[in-house]
Amino acid sequence: MRWVYSFGGGEADGGRDDQAILGSIGAQLGEMSRIGLNVPPGFTVTTEACRVFLRTGEPPSGLWKEIQEAMRMLTVRTGRAFGDDRAEPLLVSVGRGSAVSMPGTMDTILDVGSTEDSIRALGRAAGERFALDCHRRFVQLYGQVVLGVGGAVFERALAEARRSSRVAHDAELDLSSLRTLVTRFRGCVREASGRDIPADPWAQLREAVLAVFGSWDTRRARDDRRVRGIRTDLGTAVNVMAMVYGNRGDDSASGVAFTRDPSSGEARLFGEFLSNEQREDGVAGVRDPKPIVELQGRFGVALGELEQVRRLLESHYRDMQDLDFIVERGELYILQTRAGERSARAAVKIAVDMADEGLIDRRTALLRIDPERIEEVLHSSVDPSAGVEELAASPPELGRLLGWADDVRTLAVRANADGPAEAARARELGAEGIGLCRTEHMLVGEDRLGVVRELIVARSDRDRARALELLSPMQRADFEGIFRAMAGLPVAIRMLDSPLHELLPTDRDGIRELAERTGRDPLELTTAILRMRESNPMPGRRGARVGICFPEVTAMQARALFQAALAVTAEGLVVHPEIVIPFVRSAQELETQRRVVERVARDVFEQAGRGIPYALGAMIEVPRAALTARQIARHADFFSIGTDDLTRTTLGLSRDDLGTFLPLYLEQGILKDDPFRSLDVQGVGRLVSMATVEGRKGNPRLLVGVCGEHGGDPVSMAFFHDAGVDHVSCAPFRVPTARLAAAQSAIRSGLPPSPVAVSPRRERQGAPAARVAVRA
Amino acid sequence: MRWVYSFGGGEADGGRDDQAILGSIGAQLGEMSRIGLNVPPGFTVTTEACRVFLRTGEPPSGLWKEIQEAMRMLTVRTGRAFGDDRAEPLLVSVGRGSAVSMPGTMDTILDVGSTEDSIRALGRAAGERFALDCHRRFVQLYGQVVLGVGGAVFERALAEARRSSRVAHDAELDLSSLRTLVTRFRGCVREASGRDIPADPWAQLREAVLAVFGSWDTRRARDDRRVRGIRTDLGTAVNVMAMVYGNRGDDSASGVAFTRDPSSGEARLFGEFLSNEQREDGVAGVRDPKPIVELQGRFGVALGELEQVRRLLESHYRDMQDLDFIVERGELYILQTRAGERSARAAVKIAVDMADEGLIDRRTALLRIDPERIEEVLHSSVDPSAGVEELAASPPELGRLLGWADDVRTLAVRANADGPAEAARARELGAEGIGLCRTEHMLVGEDRLGVVRELIVARSDRDRARALELLSPMQRADFEGIFRAMAGLPVAIRMLDSPLHELLPTDRDGIRELAERTGRDPLELTTAILRMRESNPMPGRRGARVGICFPEVTAMQARALFQAALAVTAEGLVVHPEIVIPFVRSAQELETQRRVVERVARDVFEQAGRGIPYALGAMIEVPRAALTARQIARHADFFSIGTDDLTRTTLGLSRDDLGTFLPLYLEQGILKDDPFRSLDVQGVGRLVSMATVEGRKGNPRLLVGVCGEHGGDPVSMAFFHDAGVDHVSCAPFRVPTARLAAAQSAIRSGLPPSPVAVSPRRERQGAPAARVAVRA
Repeated sequence: MRWVYSFGGGEADGGRDDQAILGSIGAQLGEMSRIGLNVPPGFTVTTEACRVFLRTGEPPSGLWKEIQEAMRMLTVRTGRAFGDDRAEPLLVSVGRGSAVSMPGTMDTILDVGSTEDSIRALGRAAGERFALDCHRRFVQLYGQVVLGVGGAVFERALAEARRSSRVAHDAELDLSSLRTLVTRFRGCVREASGRDIPADPWAQLREAVLAVFGSWDTRRARDDRRVRGIRTDLGTAVNVMAMVYGNRGDDSASGVAFTRDPSSGEARLFGEFLSNEQREDGVAGVRDPKPIVELQGRFGVALGELEQVRRLLESHYRDMQDLDFIVERGELYILQTRAGERSARAAVKIAVDMADEGLIDRRTALLRIDPERIEEVLHSSVDPSAGVEELAASPPELGRLLGWADDVRTLAVRANADGPAEAARARELGAEGIGLCRTEHMLVGEDRLGVVRELIVARSDRDRARALELLSPMQRADFEGIFRAMAGLPVAIRMLDSPLHELLPTDRDGIRELAERTGRDPLELTTAILRMRESNPMPGRRGARVGICFPEVTAMQARALFQAALAVTAEGLVVHPEIVIPFVRSAQELETQRRVVERVARDVFEQAGRGIPYALGAMIEVPRAALTARQIARHADFFSIGTDDLTRTTLGLSRDDLGTFLPLYLEQGILKDDPFRSLDVQGVGRLVSMATVEGRKGNPRLLVGVCGEHGGDPVSMAFFHDAGVDHVSCAPFRVPTARLAAAQSAIRSGLPPSPVAVSPRRERQGAPAARVAVRA
Repeated sequence: MRWVYSFGGGEADGGRDDQAILGSIGAQLGEMSRIGLNVPPGFTVTTEACRVFLRTGEPPSGLWKEIQEAMRMLTVRTGRAFGDDRAEPLLVSVGRGSAVSMPGTMDTILDVGSTEDSIRALGRAAGERFALDCHRRFVQLYGQVVLGVGGAVFERALAEARRSSRVAHDAELDLSSLRTLVTRFRGCVREASGRDIPADPWAQLREAVLAVFGSWDTRRARDDRRVRGIRTDLGTAVNVMAMVYGNRGDDSASGVAFTRDPSSGEARLFGEFLSNEQREDGVAGVRDPKPIVELQGRFGVALGELEQVRRLLESHYRDMQDLDFIVERGELYILQTRAGERSARAAVKIAVDMADEGLIDRRTALLRIDPERIEEVLHSSVDPSAGVEELAASPPELGRLLGWADDVRTLAVRANADGPAEAARARELGAEGIGLCRTEHMLVGEDRLGVVRELIVARSDRDRARALELLSPMQRADFEGIFRAMAGLPVAIRMLDSPLHELLPTDRDGIRELAERTGRDPLELTTAILRMRESNPMPGRRGARVGICFPEVTAMQARALFQAALAVTAEGLVVHPEIVIPFVRSAQELETQRRVVERVARDVFEQAGRGIPYALGAMIEVPRAALTARQIARHADFFSIGTDDLTRTTLGLSRDDLGTFLPLYLEQGILKDDPFRSLDVQGVGRLVSMATVEGRKGNPRLLVGVCGEHGGDPVSMAFFHDAGVDHVSCAPFRVPTARLAAAQSAIRSGLPPSPVAVSPRRERQGAPAARVAVRA
């Protein structure tokens, strides 16, 4: 068993594959050193050594020897010796192994190896001020991490020193104050812990390593890991690294840099630095950092050197990097690198550029973008006052990325839209059809609600027929607008779904107006409305039941739809209407409504002397519909699965209801997510699969779409993709998100990168309506 | 092809296997003749002949010849000739083939063959009055059936005759009035139809047969058949039968008889007759019918002869029969027989007696009783004022029948009961345990609602603990009572299920009282209650969510339950508690609650120094629970499937809601039945099967019960039996019904009559709680 892995000087004992034993920081330091970046040399004590310590209370035998050997190697690489009291001594930092900070686990102890003697030697080499500053930092950190002294005593001593020196910042303290402060710090440690800082540098190193080991197993660290679901028996690695200083004079500096502009994504080095400063010293806000281009010359660092670092990092990590660096007396050291945070817009540009540069392939570029961030790109690039959310305003890289997504994905993306303007917007954003057009939204418009109310309260067939006659041309105009906007693409129009009584007035003015319209006594009308409300409680006469109880409503809507389709066809445009029967519970319900629609189609087509192909299908919104999908599909050309209502009924849970217990449930792990946001795969998802698979047993050419909020949720879409769903339908502004998510699902499920032939799924969703014979 | 089948004289060309071609009446007449009953001789024209006529408009060639041959046979059998104008002529009835009357299809035409000449001959043999009476009946029926004359004209003429003769009834008309009436009837026919009654008896017969054929295809008959779902291309048979008369003098009579007493079920001939009357003559109410024992002697019919008929019928049909008979001049004719209607009580006695007599086996006896009628037996035999619904008061045959049912069935029957009295009643009625005890019903008692409210509005852990301390002994007493009543049998107790806010007061007095109890400001309390209501809408914090949000409630109930079980066990009784977690949606919910219960069990058992076995399971009431049954079952000893709520959520339908559309849906055949009464097998049933089958994949020893209204519905029970459910639980008064229905399900599914060994299902339900290790 080997306990220590060295790095530095362009080589390393371990790298990124050794994260389990080296921790993320140790593995990365090794990796950076291996690819030729100048990292301060050092070594990593493995997690395995930590585990032995946690188990037995003793470090493994042999560890100390390996550490001593690694320290010898450090002396070779730096030319300095640990504890040297004549020449400039080797000082090291001792820190934890994970890049993720955990409460209760301490950050790094700096300047380990600084004794009163070695500090004097350092003072001779680098100035007494610098040496004292190093030492007081060491005393404080050692006190806190190793001896468990609270930080407050040091803060108080510092504040006192500033006050008595009448300065605002620590950096302004003069030499004599610093001397007094170091003595005061040592006193604090002694007072609080009853112990002294070891005079032996090796004892300091040993205690520091063991303290980092021990920090893994504090109560706070354990609690924190439990919350995050991190295994508690892993242990931590310990990194020991030669100190480098950005505050060693005017040829020294510390800074951060991104390999590309994290805001615009532009492919140029971006960053800033502070000269003669150690980053940890909290001077932010006191001095202005300078842009990175100014490093050139003055600090002895050529921009070309940084450019080379940039290329080295990107060609190795194949992503934009965010790095910490230090220039010590003209020598550039890289301390850390990580994938850089970036704006949504930059993320898109960087992914597309990197694909163009050959750094990554297109599929990797597609996987790089969180689909949820696409909206951000659109928002950030469109002037909100411009009115339409226009894609041409938006970065050209987004268009290209979504184009690549379209090449890869097999899941079609449609939009929910209730009118021509919305439909047109959806089409601009790449929707391949309308997945859900809710006609009840059309019927509540100011000019028609009155007529709709006349229809509902009609007492005779004649009154009812009159209202229907008035409504029919209005509906027809609605449908014509949508068909024109979506010419050539399928449009799924849902028949009236809302409980009728919800459309009736309850206020005095509304009732009076309806009474005038219908020539009825207001009081009589009020009681009629009340009676209707009472006999129609909440779930009420909605969905397919509206059409079954009032087939004339379905007939009116179907007639308007067919007439609109014929009119638009006559303009030379192609229409693909799909008629959706809502909230279907059984095959019989669908069959009954299908007969009504077919009769109307026959009538309209006969009268016109020509027909158009159309499809008819069912909304699957209750578990029973999914459970009897095979039978229902015999009467359906397609299913439209409404996952919002299906979630509500499958879980016996209303959305308004979640607030009272969801936080508790998430906290206790009883739920993983809000089931109305991300599909409940085990329950609702099983019904979606069942509806899809068994529906196709009843009708092998069945087209299956999902509409509802999950239709635009990337996580849920991956499930829909695997379940064999043909298309999802979402709000227009979610269409680009859905296109990308669909591509990611296809890539993750292992489909070939660019389908040469059209897949069966694509073929199925291509022209669904064409499957239905022309019924003229 | 043969068109005519003869019967009479102890033999027949066809019998009950020929119902398709002879119709139900023809087949039965043949059958009766074959087994030696004296039926009036005659013949049946087949449905095939009718179908030829309906298809071609002509009777099949050869039919007439066969009819003539059959008439010749009739002459041989009766010694009378058709159209004879010298001796007493042969008269026949011509009627339809089905025993079921259909609107628009006419009943029988009597006395066909009565011409002016033959009637004179009949007058000479039987008296002119009798002959004229026969003739006027013939003229009316022939007019109506063959010539389509409305019945009203005849009724008017009769009323006119009665008025001018100043008599109240037709039978009182004198000879001369009868003569005038016959002439008037013939005039009516001529006037209304423009045709005369044929003077040729053969023409009468031919037209009568064709008229019956034609009656099959009237519009009303077609509509009626469509409603009943009878195929319309079947056609009707025609029965031609020699007339026999119960009004041929004082040695003649007509009557009805049951082979057993239809009210008590006693095994003796039961019936009544009218002497010198034809039954059709509508004299009911004018003369009192006499009990059948009086037939003896005076009418030349020995009771022994009727007894022989009774034995013949029962040994052949193996069921109690209801027969029509006529005595003509001392000779007993049987005209029709059918399984007799009987009271529920008689049905049970007859089935048990017949099994004892060896007429049927026990399984047939069990299948004979509609389980829905068992309640009727209990109601009819128990004095409602006696208080308890007692089985010992009820007929001993019911106890024996239910005993046989218990021998056959594999599905266990439990009862829903919320208190000791109800539990004891259920046990008396044969319940094998409590399937559902709803603790929220216990908590709303007057003495405890106040404490429950304290608990809900408690602001501190101390207040909450105090309320729980008060409630605990009350719950414990409830549980002890039930455990005692059900000693030795399993008792499933459901943890609190109702939304908490529903238990809070909304009236001023209630709020004031709660304020006094808790020492809080009434206004502050009111706002607290309102806030609770708002944040807990309808589906609210119910089911497992109550226990998860307030684990102390579950803990209190579990503690009371275990303490009660220990106390009752100390009395030497055996308890089998089953803890039911309500409205479970996921395995995680159940697991969380299980942990709470297990912790309490450990505490209580440790404190007591001993433990008891118990089981813990989940209510399956939402589709998601059924869909994830396998995972949930890993934490469950049993499932209790609540089919009421499961129906509501699977269909997305509330029960209150049905009224607005159920009648229309039933009429249009979209629904077959009320899904809350009889299980929706395709949808909800599939989830029940899924929960059962997949639950046992998660836990092979999983016990599955159904509670809910379907648990007592015989049709649904057949499904539960086949689905592998272990037990149903219903209201106590439904337990006997369920026991019988369970037996019928077992018989119908083809299990061996009396299982020698205990079936796996029985074993599973035997002592479910014993599967859980004692946790002391």
